[in-house]
Amino acid sequence: MAAKLPTVVLLASFAAVILSLAAPLLAGDPDMLQDICPEANVTAEDFFFPGLGKPADVYSGNPMGSAVTAATVERIPGLNTLGVSMARVDYAPWGGANPPHSHPRATEILFVADGLLEVGFVVATAAPASSRLITRVVPKGGVFVFPRGLLHYERSVGEKPAVAISAFDSQLPGTQAAADALFGSSSPAVPTDVLARAFQVDGGVVENIKSKFQHK
Amino acid sequence: MAAKLPTVVLLASFAAVILSLAAPLLAGDPDMLQDICPEANVTAEDFFFPGLGKPADVYSGNPMGSAVTAATVERIPGLNTLGVSMARVDYAPWGGANPPHSHPRATEILFVADGLLEVGFVVATAAPASSRLITRVVPKGGVFVFPRGLLHYERSVGEKPAVAISAFDSQLPGTQAAADALFGSSSPAVPTDVLARAFQVDGGVVENIKSKFQHK
Amino acid sequence: MAAKLPTVVLLASFAAVILSLAAPLLAGDPDMLQDICPEANVTAEDFFFPGLGKPADVYSGNPMGSAVTAATVERIPGLNTLGVSMARVDYAPWGGANPPHSHPRATEILFVADGLLEVGFVVATAAPASSRLITRVVPKGGVFVFPRGLLHYERSVGEKPAVAISAFDSQLPGTQAAADALFGSSSPAVPTDVLARAFQVDGGVVENIKSKFQHK
Amino acid sequence: MAAKLPTVVLLASFAAVILSLAAPLLAGDPDMLQDICPEANVTAEDFFFPGLGKPADVYSGNPMGSAVTAATVERIPGLNTLGVSMARVDYAPWGGANPPHSHPRATEILFVADGLLEVGFVVATAAPASSRLITRVVPKGGVFVFPRGLLHYERSVGEKPAVAISAFDSQLPGTQAAADALFGSSSPAVPTDVLARAFQVDGGVVENIKSKFQHK
Amino acid sequence: MAAKLPTVVLLASFAAVILSLAAPLLAGDPDMLQDICPEANVTAEDFFFPGLGKPADVYSGNPMGSAVTAATVERIPGLNTLGVSMARVDYAPWGGANPPHSHPRATEILFVADGLLEVGFVVATAAPASSRLITRVVPKGGVFVFPRGLLHYERSVGEKPAVAISAFDSQLPGTQAAADALFGSSSPAVPTDVLARAFQVDGGVVENIKSKFQHK
Amino acid sequence: MAAKLPTVVLLASFAAVILSLAAPLLAGDPDMLQDICPEANVTAEDFFFPGLGKPADVYSGNPMGSAVTAATVERIPGLNTLGVSMARVDYAPWGGANPPHSHPRATEILFVADGLLEVGFVVATAAPASSRLITRVVPKGGVFVFPRGLLHYERSVGEKPAVAISAFDSQLPGTQAAADALFGSSSPAVPTDVLARAFQVDGGVVENIKSKFQHK
Repeated sequence: MAAKLPTVVLLASFAAVILSLAAPLLAGDPDMLQDICPEANVTAEDFFFPGLGKPADVYSGNPMGSAVTAATVERIPGLNTLGVSMARVDYAPWGGANPPHSHPRATEILFVADGLLEVGFVVATAAPASSRLITRVVPKGGVFVFPRGLLHYERSVGEKPAVAISAFDSQLPGTQAAADALFGSSSPAVPTDVLARAFQVDGGVVENIKSKFQHK
Repeated sequence: MAAKLPTVVLLASFAAVILSLAAPLLAGDPDMLQDICPEANVTAEDFFFPGLGKPADVYSGNPMGSAVTAATVERIPGLNTLGVSMARVDYAPWGGANPPHSHPRATEILFVADGLLEVGFVVATAAPASSRLITRVVPKGGVFVFPRGLLHYERSVGEKPAVAISAFDSQLPGTQAAADALFGSSSPAVPTDVLARAFQVDGGVVENIKSKFQHK
Repeated sequence: MAAKLPTVVLLASFAAVILSLAAPLLAGDPDMLQDICPEANVTAEDFFFPGLGKPADVYSGNPMGSAVTAATVERIPGLNTLGVSMARVDYAPWGGANPPHSHPRATEILFVADGLLEVGFVVATAAPASSRLITRVVPKGGVFVFPRGLLHYERSVGEKPAVAISAFDSQLPGTQAAADALFGSSSPAVPTDVLARAFQVDGGVVENIKSKFQHK
Repeated sequence: MAAKLPTVVLLASFAAVILSLAAPLLAGDPDMLQDICPEANVTAEDFFFPGLGKPADVYSGNPMGSAVTAATVERIPGLNTLGVSMARVDYAPWGGANPPHSHPRATEILFVADGLLEVGFVVATAAPASSRLITRVVPKGGVFVFPRGLLHYERSVGEKPAVAISAFDSQLPGTQAAADALFGSSSPAVPTDVLARAFQVDGGVVENIKSKFQHK
Repeated sequence: MAAKLPTVVLLASFAAVILSLAAPLLAGDPDMLQDICPEANVTAEDFFFPGLGKPADVYSGNPMGSAVTAATVERIPGLNTLGVSMARVDYAPWGGANPPHSHPRATEILFVADGLLEVGFVVATAAPASSRLITRVVPKGGVFVFPRGLLHYERSVGEKPAVAISAFDSQLPGTQAAADALFGSSSPAVPTDVLARAFQVDGGVVENIKSKFQHK
Repeated sequence: MAAKLPTVVLLASFAAVILSLAAPLLAGDPDMLQDICPEANVTAEDFFFPGLGKPADVYSGNPMGSAVTAATVERIPGLNTLGVSMARVDYAPWGGANPPHSHPRATEILFVADGLLEVGFVVATAAPASSRLITRVVPKGGVFVFPRGLLHYERSVGEKPAVAISAFDSQLPGTQAAADALFGSSSPAVPTDVLARAFQVDGGVVENIKSKFQHK
């Protein structure tokens, strides 16, 4: 019966999916209205993604020494409305780092598939107390949790490359890397004096950091 | 300041966590009210679980040839209110199976860490059409999704043991294995004639299946 | 003002409704964004369904001796985004049964409008304990509850036909009947050896049950 | 294991249930964290209520000619966290009315079990347009929907008593009857001049209406 | 990439926004799926509204002596899916009143920016207890809360005009003014005898009140 | 009846409230189960907070030139489960800034009560594109929105002190100030080499910034 819908309606029915493919970030999904969405003519391919098996390149021209491969609704259309997604993160040995970032719409649960990771997230505490870091070394086979919306990082602290498989309670968790968001945003940039005041440095230091994040 | 709360209140504050530890199943969590819950005196240990690194025994006295190791709020107290959990599933080669089951409160996203898995879930379709199986072989490094509340299974179809890392959008997704729930429940059992009518077999066949699920 | 929207937009605005009509199952709805959806040009007919007053045929060619008449968003367009639906179930006397099934997106609350029903649902309990059946006879005028996503059944145990009025916390709760889902699914079928292992019977028993669920 | 929890914790674990029993109203529930809540030592009686089978008295000292019998979490403890409830409403023939009221936390779906009902709900429309009534006569066997939080009423328009079975997407939907809330509230009352201005009548009319709602 | 979508899809993607502009009421929003929605080509103007700075006219032809200026998704398209909105309310001195009303989809938190307000909301309590008014005078700089779906009012009790800035946990909270909904609805009107019975007055009083709410 | 509950239960019933008072952050609340929570013996004082009327000190020993006064569930117990809160922010003239921060559980809608503010938030865009700043000057009487979980800032750009009234769709939105979270966290600190790599500066620069955030 769905096959009889006019083309315009079918196009429209995919708009939500297509638009979210254009969406760069995300976090915290509503409940499902159907078993799967859209339901018509789905096949197993809509629920499958082959690409978390191979290491990403964390060496060439990669100042962080880490790389994320995402398996979100952008690559698994069947995830639409299902409220979960995954990612693989590769880390160079001895210091490859996924720099401090947060996911605005999801908690992350991370499984260390290989190597040795130091992980941490920051909990803000009421003034006059300071922010508090919750941190630990997680060995291969260990699991750690980063609560929704909080800044966190991972760093390889072993002699071989590390690999993490992370899952999120959102079809598109979004990622906001703090340094890039503050010093690398453009059109326009965050004002230098706002950053100088926030980080309590002079404007020259801010301009210097900004220069590192110029996107070509 | 939280340290000044009377003991009875602190005990009470853990009641939700403790009770959910006693809860055998689960699925589909409300949003968070705090960053982490409870917040007082948490340490990194509350967000860590070391035990997904080693294979479980899938051979001795295991008729299914599979075993699940869960990393839910029962083992990671810090997951409380965070809406995610994980599990590792081990499968014997050539046929080790996680039998048809559903999670009443969560979608599952499965990553094949090793081996080769055939996976499938059933979508009900409106009468007079039949139920429809969505199925595929997933190689090492592949990802597959089982929508919330739908019956699904996995089966090892390779010559080496298979390993899956699964994540759920619930701190405690629950599991209802169809055969055990229907033929193995007790105090009392599901009536034989209900099952005979449902499966369209005679009562002797039902009694025979029931005898295989007697829990000591 | 809505009347001035181009046709294409109006068609699009109904796509969510129309697509969910094509959806065979469902359960567990997000909150509302408007009082009613869509809001333009609604009439009382959009919120009305006349058809729960008459008994369905539970005798002719009906191996279960029961029949469900649904009043979901498929038949009441005004239910869209409102999070509830209803159904009437008719049962033949002495054994007419709604076979074990679950609703992936809704809890069910059942009112016995006529006759006498035995009802039950299964709660899974942590290993090594077995599944547990919660069951009771419900007389005319009684109410019983089946929690979201759990397998449950009803069976007429009186000398006259039974009638139930059930409600769900979803505009489209979905239904997955266990026996039909496992033994009746097609394109392709659930593999015989998966079912043989799950139910701990030999392949011939599985094939025999499958033959009863062949949909023409 | 739950049996080993100290008494204080068990008491605490029931606090949410007990407090909601003290709660006079309700509407719009979060998702479940467990299959059933609390889970320990539940029996079928926790999910059962016998009392919707008999007509309530709608004649003696009942100015509205209607009476509601509720089957909410207050009477079915197993409904806790499950997000649904039911009620039976009896109406005297020719005019027995459930006066205009709203449920702050639930949509209502109403089934006419007997008699003939006129039903209606009000949708507000943007100024300068007026409020709009969506109304219809619903015969025996018919279903009608009242969206969450909107004022609605039912009135018997047949020659025999009417009976409705209503369901809600909340374990405790709450009820706010407009006339009683505005003219019958006390400790203190809504100021007469606020009501006079709102209803555009003089203070004497307000005082007269208030006198009808004095609760002894 | 979004720029390459066919026009029809782009139109469709705005349908949810546009339809909600046509929606006269609202309350209680689902979670976000993206950072912002739609995401393509948004500018700061989509998140900005200039118009809460000036007092509205509360004198000319305004029987209530109050006026609401809303800043919802209808005027701030970027609010779509973000779950909040604001409004400014102006009150004439000495009695200007926002008459008893409720928001079906939102709790309201009100800040007194100027003047002196008496505020109140009604909590229903179980029979045989009466409705209960929770009321207080709130000075300039004070904050008060009206829970979701409950009838509430504000009244200026100072010698200068009062101003409130209110916020809601919904992009479109909806407003149902009790007197206008009951006595001013049309096409058709709420039947006079229903209102007479509900308010326990005779039909002439009802007709008189109705005559004040005739919308031209 | 609630008055007859044993003391231990009453204490327990307040545990959720009290613990959230100890919670330093927050964002994104579940729906309500009751009209108000707890319901017993509430008074108008539970829904009132007097303290947003006076300017906070933004001069003495305040390197940012801004100060936040919160009106959350910590100060308004009646907000518990209601899903909203408010705050007042004061800014020194010409540059007083609320430094870049995010709210992990809430969208913010900001009203400029006085002065002139420049505001902005950062949207991450998919690689290889850069982060994008959405920014604008908001005059007195204007409204602006910061989506949930995204970094944002405000800065006074007028010649008189600025004042903002902000609201959140959470009873406790939480605040994570990026610079303080990353450079000021302790017990232990975020490792210097993680920050050096993330901000692409040498360790001496990191140590220098850290020294500014040492909490006594």
